[in-house]
Amino acid sequence: MSLHAEVQRFYVHQLGLLDDDRPDDWADLFTPDADFREVTGTRLHGREEIRASVRRRHEHVVTTGLDFFRHWLGMLQASATPAGTVHARSYALAMYTPADNALRVYVNVVCEDVLIPHGSTFMVRSRHLRADGR
Amino acid sequence: MSLHAEVQRFYVHQLGLLDDDRPDDWADLFTPDADFREVTGTRLHGREEIRASVRRRHEHVVTTGLDFFRHWLGMLQASATPAGTVHARSYALAMYTPADNALRVYVNVVCEDVLIPHGSTFMVRSRHLRADGR
Amino acid sequence: MSLHAEVQRFYVHQLGLLDDDRPDDWADLFTPDADFREVTGTRLHGREEIRASVRRRHEHVVTTGLDFFRHWLGMLQASATPAGTVHARSYALAMYTPADNALRVYVNVVCEDVLIPHGSTFMVRSRHLRADGR
Repeated sequence: MSLHAEVQRFYVHQLGLLDDDRPDDWADLFTPDADFREVTGTRLHGREEIRASVRRRHEHVVTTGLDFFRHWLGMLQASATPAGTVHARSYALAMYTPADNALRVYVNVVCEDVLIPHGSTFMVRSRHLRADGR
Repeated sequence: MSLHAEVQRFYVHQLGLLDDDRPDDWADLFTPDADFREVTGTRLHGREEIRASVRRRHEHVVTTGLDFFRHWLGMLQASATPAGTVHARSYALAMYTPADNALRVYVNVVCEDVLIPHGSTFMVRSRHLRADGR
Repeated sequence: MSLHAEVQRFYVHQLGLLDDDRPDDWADLFTPDADFREVTGTRLHGREEIRASVRRRHEHVVTTGLDFFRHWLGMLQASATPAGTVHARSYALAMYTPADNALRVYVNVVCEDVLIPHGSTFMVRSRHLRADGR
């Protein structure tokens, strides 16, 4: 399998965990010392800060009835670096459909990650998100 | 070509038949005994029930002027089973653009299929669709 | 890398140049004698007419505050022809997010290209765009 295909598979899996209401499993795919820059500009340091943030976001989605949440990833570029890490850039389209209501596609995000190989898959060492329009 | 790439190619072809107003050719890609669970929960048994249903839907689209219909498939996961079939899970985004009108992206559907190999491509033995928000 | 993967990579790169405000670099990926049929039906002849057109469009986007522009490509089909060219058909979803405003996904376009190999990548010899609803 090509690097591009492996990275695509990783993202389908990781984003799918968010869609399937498994924020803890999503957070477990970050390295313990991972850096995360949210679309708001907030910087999170380490997996546990990332976990706390995604849990709060998930609670908010459930509480405010914004489910079903859904994420599409596309336009992926992936390249190996001499250091053995992978630089990946992708677009993510976030949308939600409240129960018995209309779909709303509400933001396109550009995602720049540094991934490190982990067995036959990857972990995220750093993630930088930028939302269009902000 | 990898399994993932072969399955992706199959779906681009099959969904494209819907977009190109060829519902009969679309239906021919189901096995004669295929099971289909629609987003409404209705269960269809066999290719001819599936064909009748897609023809009705296509008539409805034409009659009500909802064309152009368009389907995007993404976030595909595909895995071979010991029995020689393929389990495939994907997201489909359905949208339409009435003539001289605005695009409306109206639903995200989660599609779970069992495919069987058929020459260099596949046929659908079972399909289970769930629409976000329902 | 498969032909499909190479062509996908080319499009992610070329469309990304539009998104990253680099219309000149985008135009440089057409052959000098390229044909381009725009969604309006206008025919452009040669790279320099294509460049002039994309520059005008880019100016319009900047002037009217429609940035951030964003393009997704999907549903790609690619096949090699006996003549050594590549026929590629894809869907492109165009969207924009004005600063501090909501995302608008405004059109789905069907893109039919003839590509010619160029080193490890491609150039566009002809492009025919059709927008849904027109």
